[in-house]
Amino acid sequence: MAGNRGVVYQGAGRVEVQDIAYPEFELKDGPGVNPANVGRKVPHGVILKVVATNICGSDQHMVRGRTTAPEGLVLGHEITGEVVEKGSDVEFVEVGDLVSVPFNISCGRCRNCKERRTEICLNVNPDRPGSAYGYVDMGGWVGGQAEYALVPYADWNLLRFPDRDRAMEKILDLTMLSDIFPTGYHGCVTAGVGVGSSVYVAGAGPVGLAAAASAQLLGAAVVIVGDMKEERLAQARSFGCEAVNVAEGDPGEQIERILGSPVVDCAVDAVGFEAHGTGKDAEKEAPASVLNTAMALTRAGGSIGIPGLYVTGDPGASDEAAREGSLSIRLGLGWSKSHAFFTGQCPVMKYHRELMAAIMTDRVQIAKAVNAVAIPLEEAPEGYRSFDEGAASKYVLDPNGYLGTG
Amino acid sequence: MAGNRGVVYQGAGRVEVQDIAYPEFELKDGPGVNPANVGRKVPHGVILKVVATNICGSDQHMVRGRTTAPEGLVLGHEITGEVVEKGSDVEFVEVGDLVSVPFNISCGRCRNCKERRTEICLNVNPDRPGSAYGYVDMGGWVGGQAEYALVPYADWNLLRFPDRDRAMEKILDLTMLSDIFPTGYHGCVTAGVGVGSSVYVAGAGPVGLAAAASAQLLGAAVVIVGDMKEERLAQARSFGCEAVNVAEGDPGEQIERILGSPVVDCAVDAVGFEAHGTGKDAEKEAPASVLNTAMALTRAGGSIGIPGLYVTGDPGASDEAAREGSLSIRLGLGWSKSHAFFTGQCPVMKYHRELMAAIMTDRVQIAKAVNAVAIPLEEAPEGYRSFDEGAASKYVLDPNGYLGTG
Amino acid sequence: MAGNRGVVYQGAGRVEVQDIAYPEFELKDGPGVNPANVGRKVPHGVILKVVATNICGSDQHMVRGRTTAPEGLVLGHEITGEVVEKGSDVEFVEVGDLVSVPFNISCGRCRNCKERRTEICLNVNPDRPGSAYGYVDMGGWVGGQAEYALVPYADWNLLRFPDRDRAMEKILDLTMLSDIFPTGYHGCVTAGVGVGSSVYVAGAGPVGLAAAASAQLLGAAVVIVGDMKEERLAQARSFGCEAVNVAEGDPGEQIERILGSPVVDCAVDAVGFEAHGTGKDAEKEAPASVLNTAMALTRAGGSIGIPGLYVTGDPGASDEAAREGSLSIRLGLGWSKSHAFFTGQCPVMKYHRELMAAIMTDRVQIAKAVNAVAIPLEEAPEGYRSFDEGAASKYVLDPNGYLGTG
Amino acid sequence: MAGNRGVVYQGAGRVEVQDIAYPEFELKDGPGVNPANVGRKVPHGVILKVVATNICGSDQHMVRGRTTAPEGLVLGHEITGEVVEKGSDVEFVEVGDLVSVPFNISCGRCRNCKERRTEICLNVNPDRPGSAYGYVDMGGWVGGQAEYALVPYADWNLLRFPDRDRAMEKILDLTMLSDIFPTGYHGCVTAGVGVGSSVYVAGAGPVGLAAAASAQLLGAAVVIVGDMKEERLAQARSFGCEAVNVAEGDPGEQIERILGSPVVDCAVDAVGFEAHGTGKDAEKEAPASVLNTAMALTRAGGSIGIPGLYVTGDPGASDEAAREGSLSIRLGLGWSKSHAFFTGQCPVMKYHRELMAAIMTDRVQIAKAVNAVAIPLEEAPEGYRSFDEGAASKYVLDPNGYLGTG
Repeated sequence: MAGNRGVVYQGAGRVEVQDIAYPEFELKDGPGVNPANVGRKVPHGVILKVVATNICGSDQHMVRGRTTAPEGLVLGHEITGEVVEKGSDVEFVEVGDLVSVPFNISCGRCRNCKERRTEICLNVNPDRPGSAYGYVDMGGWVGGQAEYALVPYADWNLLRFPDRDRAMEKILDLTMLSDIFPTGYHGCVTAGVGVGSSVYVAGAGPVGLAAAASAQLLGAAVVIVGDMKEERLAQARSFGCEAVNVAEGDPGEQIERILGSPVVDCAVDAVGFEAHGTGKDAEKEAPASVLNTAMALTRAGGSIGIPGLYVTGDPGASDEAAREGSLSIRLGLGWSKSHAFFTGQCPVMKYHRELMAAIMTDRVQIAKAVNAVAIPLEEAPEGYRSFDEGAASKYVLDPNGYLGTG
Repeated sequence: MAGNRGVVYQGAGRVEVQDIAYPEFELKDGPGVNPANVGRKVPHGVILKVVATNICGSDQHMVRGRTTAPEGLVLGHEITGEVVEKGSDVEFVEVGDLVSVPFNISCGRCRNCKERRTEICLNVNPDRPGSAYGYVDMGGWVGGQAEYALVPYADWNLLRFPDRDRAMEKILDLTMLSDIFPTGYHGCVTAGVGVGSSVYVAGAGPVGLAAAASAQLLGAAVVIVGDMKEERLAQARSFGCEAVNVAEGDPGEQIERILGSPVVDCAVDAVGFEAHGTGKDAEKEAPASVLNTAMALTRAGGSIGIPGLYVTGDPGASDEAAREGSLSIRLGLGWSKSHAFFTGQCPVMKYHRELMAAIMTDRVQIAKAVNAVAIPLEEAPEGYRSFDEGAASKYVLDPNGYLGTG
Repeated sequence: MAGNRGVVYQGAGRVEVQDIAYPEFELKDGPGVNPANVGRKVPHGVILKVVATNICGSDQHMVRGRTTAPEGLVLGHEITGEVVEKGSDVEFVEVGDLVSVPFNISCGRCRNCKERRTEICLNVNPDRPGSAYGYVDMGGWVGGQAEYALVPYADWNLLRFPDRDRAMEKILDLTMLSDIFPTGYHGCVTAGVGVGSSVYVAGAGPVGLAAAASAQLLGAAVVIVGDMKEERLAQARSFGCEAVNVAEGDPGEQIERILGSPVVDCAVDAVGFEAHGTGKDAEKEAPASVLNTAMALTRAGGSIGIPGLYVTGDPGASDEAAREGSLSIRLGLGWSKSHAFFTGQCPVMKYHRELMAAIMTDRVQIAKAVNAVAIPLEEAPEGYRSFDEGAASKYVLDPNGYLGTG
Repeated sequence: MAGNRGVVYQGAGRVEVQDIAYPEFELKDGPGVNPANVGRKVPHGVILKVVATNICGSDQHMVRGRTTAPEGLVLGHEITGEVVEKGSDVEFVEVGDLVSVPFNISCGRCRNCKERRTEICLNVNPDRPGSAYGYVDMGGWVGGQAEYALVPYADWNLLRFPDRDRAMEKILDLTMLSDIFPTGYHGCVTAGVGVGSSVYVAGAGPVGLAAAASAQLLGAAVVIVGDMKEERLAQARSFGCEAVNVAEGDPGEQIERILGSPVVDCAVDAVGFEAHGTGKDAEKEAPASVLNTAMALTRAGGSIGIPGLYVTGDPGASDEAAREGSLSIRLGLGWSKSHAFFTGQCPVMKYHRELMAAIMTDRVQIAKAVNAVAIPLEEAPEGYRSFDEGAASKYVLDPNGYLGTG
């Protein structure tokens, strides 16, 4: 049995790369593993040698100490890998296959999976519908920022890249299929983005940039990205988006200068609960700010896609209501404009195949859009730090040298 | 020219039946008429002799003084009538036609109308998208709780009843096509109600009862209605719904006793901003209570239809945020369950034709479901009072004796 | 190991009940088994003790000798049963569960299954997408008109009845979930049947009657069923449908007498390729007749659902083109009316859960609608004969006495 | 009153530019005008000074004598113009507006218009649902290949270009909004083309090329265009499409060489009833050939969009069935693959606004894709001839010199 190294959460503000257990076809006890999942057999799983695994903004919520994640948790839910072992129940995946793993773990056998709602699978997380690798309250499936990782229900979950060599040429693009590309795309699809749309994307982090690239792919006429970090806005401009700096004041006025109208057809909230105010309030946390701004900016009849994470409990919130996940929403404004709102995790499996096709035929340059930067696994702590400081980069860890960083 | 009598708002708590102007093919100045609409020519309109016109819960918001409605406003947006005069540009409607009028006034010529979003028509209300008869901030179109009423853009707006005699036999059902039947139905459609669904409808007022009847028509397996007035719950039970009294405690527990599960597939908020708490808080206004309860009661992946009215400003609200239409929403809860939320007025025209067919073929008994009660126009003040006190009735005014009340 | 008895095709016009092999967790060689499927391991399967298994109109195509079905084929794809053994990879189904089996066999692991298109699963039939039990050219999975049957991919395929006792009370309804109820419903859904629709269903066999009941469940205003057998039309009338006898002449004229208009909103072809003409041509096979009539009867803008089977080869057809599955379609007529056409097997899994809920809450009486008649397994040959002669009954075989026929 | 010049059909193979009547706000008698439309008042109309008006493939059906079009018919249904007069009922269009006219004439007041099915408007053509300018059996509305043209129901029908100067810069693109761009796009939308799709477009005439450009705009991964004219295929290749010459043999084999698979996700039939065979049958008319090929080339579960025209009667057809619009369709093949088929005219109004936005923001170069060539009105006969001979050009007539041809 080989050894294994992985990125481990060590308490607020601290991640380390450590020796961790090599995966077996069973979910063992460990930090954050739900007792009901301990000892769960995984004959339907495969073990991947990880080719690429990315640091995600939602990992940052844990690392910043904004959650109840336990120390010792192995992080990482954005995984692309090569199959090195398969369980006895795996029928259509082969050793040697290069595959993308949706960050949502799902069983492929429950009502929700059958209805393409893999983000709320009923059978993988004893706590509640939905699960993910290496994440607090998600059942305890071990994270994939590691050399090797276990993927359950492999026939169902995995997306196989048909041509290994061609896939390796675009691996920095394809690694975005595990989470942020579908997540940004889902935000756009639910917001009703289509040919000719004008779109406002709140947030120029990786998910926001992925949403912006997705909007273009869906045929949007104009894509406007809002953020308060100039470096990130420059990244948005680099692939043809308009950009507004929300720290400089009312985004509506800035949008009017771009469009000749202060409203857009569709809006995507790619920020979530760690939102800040706009203009002079840009320094302050204001968890409802992005959503309330989105309503003001979206035309009557428009929809708002909300892939940005909102949580049921936020111990680090500045006010009591927000600590319980309650936000002061201008619902009356939205109602008067007949808005529709779409929340929740992206069901990655609904989209990853078509996005893979778009990548392989050069219809989209997602790695460029999010500024993917490959770094060795051992440099993960620096990656986390740099990302937390607002670097306009998406860090891709390279645990086994496939990406040539080592 | 004939005379005219109508129901007039006279300040908080007061409505009177008064002599009002007979309609002309022009929008004259008057209480609440937007200056930009004064003098607007209406050659595309018809004048109706009103056959039936209903008191609506949303009228009550004005009459209770919860809005800025001006004194002298002629009320009424639920209108069914007979065409007695037509403007020069009316081509496909004839004098003598019996017609239903959608409460949303729309032009049939703007982008939103072309996209079937008549509830946010861009050309009828200078203040903002969307309009209605006899309503505050809706452009100033004169209300229809009167003997005669003007309907603009008649070729577009009107739904003609094909057979006058058969229509008169079901007129108490057909009068619900102008607002509450489509509104309740829209709540269900947006909530995703379909064959086999379990549905929770918050509120057993007329819109809630209409939503419940609509859910049955759409094939729902179980329809559960929540309210705190036993008389209204009895009305819900009378046509096969389950009922929960939210004043008696957590609706989830009551639902579990009915379904064997504390969650439903779909929820409809037929209450809106004048909501109260549940259990021991049932006496207190709690404007976000219904929505937050709906999220708790709806299964992961479900949708919530919100036909209940939420307003951008509520001068009578108990706290400052609510006065500006901001409510403390448990967005984190909804997000964790991947909920979708659909707000806004119902675009009546999208649904009234199919609902008319369902009425005429006895597929639904909407008048019975909402307990329609016809009363003479002159008794409108008593109707308003009784409805405000929670009577489990839908009052239908009979200004011209078609309904035989006089 | 127990014995097993099953219904076996013995050549054109002949079926017999014979001893057959008791199922194992492997697909053995036998009549009609695709060589690539021989020896296929089925650790994901369960063995059912069959509770109810129905004779289907599509079985008749084989029994009449209109296909290349081999002698010795065990028939039967409409299966409801009790789990008596489970394979090593079955995780969420338990011995003792009472379950419905979709007639489409699917893997739950391929692209099409993930997209809810289980009727064209890519992994179960080496010949082409899609499979079924006991059917020619469908991969060789053994039929279920037997005492015991093997169901592969059981976690994916099976629908569990939550309450065994309540399920047994409605077992003649629930047995229709395996095929004809979802199939008729799919015809309606694809035809766009909804609240208030007028619907024409061609064919009053079991699928046609199931489509008619489905249309009612979906809220249709008027359902008109066409056939040329009076007994079957009487069955349609028994649950509130209108009926037209196509042998008596142009259905359009008959429909006009019912509706006041010669066209309907939606049409469902529940006949398929063994169609006959109308009026004086009612005796003659006319394979395109039903479709061409459906176009004539459907209003511009309507859709036509085609659950009735059309085949790629029909050795028994009366003309050469039809022998190759080519029919003379009035495409110009359909085009001028902007019709849409939806063909193919019903993906049962998309619908069976919601239809189960409708059955269990008495929203539909499907057994009554199709006139379900339980008979002992040993009387299957009589059932086939009677059905072929046009009996207005749906025969349900009772191989193990659960239905009390024995 | 000004004079007027227009393109007039003079019998099979002959068009001439002649003096014609200047339009009035009334439909006068003339060749092909339905008696019920003679004298129809049009106070809702505008008179356009035509800026651009295109020759369409469907005009060719008439000019080739394949229809019952009467001599003297003024041709032309692809119209872009400047408003020079407006009727008394026109409220939201102004003299001086630059506008695009959907080729479907529709009233904006009937059930179908309200449901966005403007291609089958019930009020403009006494013969049947649906109408168009200058076309046989379409009610008799005068064609727009002329200096001046009347557009009824102008508030409803017209799409206004917001910025006149910017519009004139892209006028060769914008003129495609009246028909072929939305028509090709509709073919793609109904075929289910989306991000990552592989698409086969049958026919590289202007509609086929517009479909191909639309598929790209919708995010398709690979677009393959089939035709038998090399010049047209070269045009398809010029903007990034793959091309197959169907005269050279089985398109499936050629597609397999491109995709590694002989089937595509979606197919669009942009040819219609004047189709030819493939391979050695490429010389022969074979009206069902394109559709049957499309079924063979489309994967199971795919859809086929059919914007190409099929007619109810084709006096010039080679066999009797085709003369009545009956074609020998391999329905069994389609059924076995669960195909869906979408026929009919494109409802232009559903799409033209979003496509205008895509043009104005340079998301699509539709004029380049179809090789738009402006010619003076007086050269229309040469344009017709050249187009009929298969020129890979889309001819845009310039009746008033706006395009600078004169």
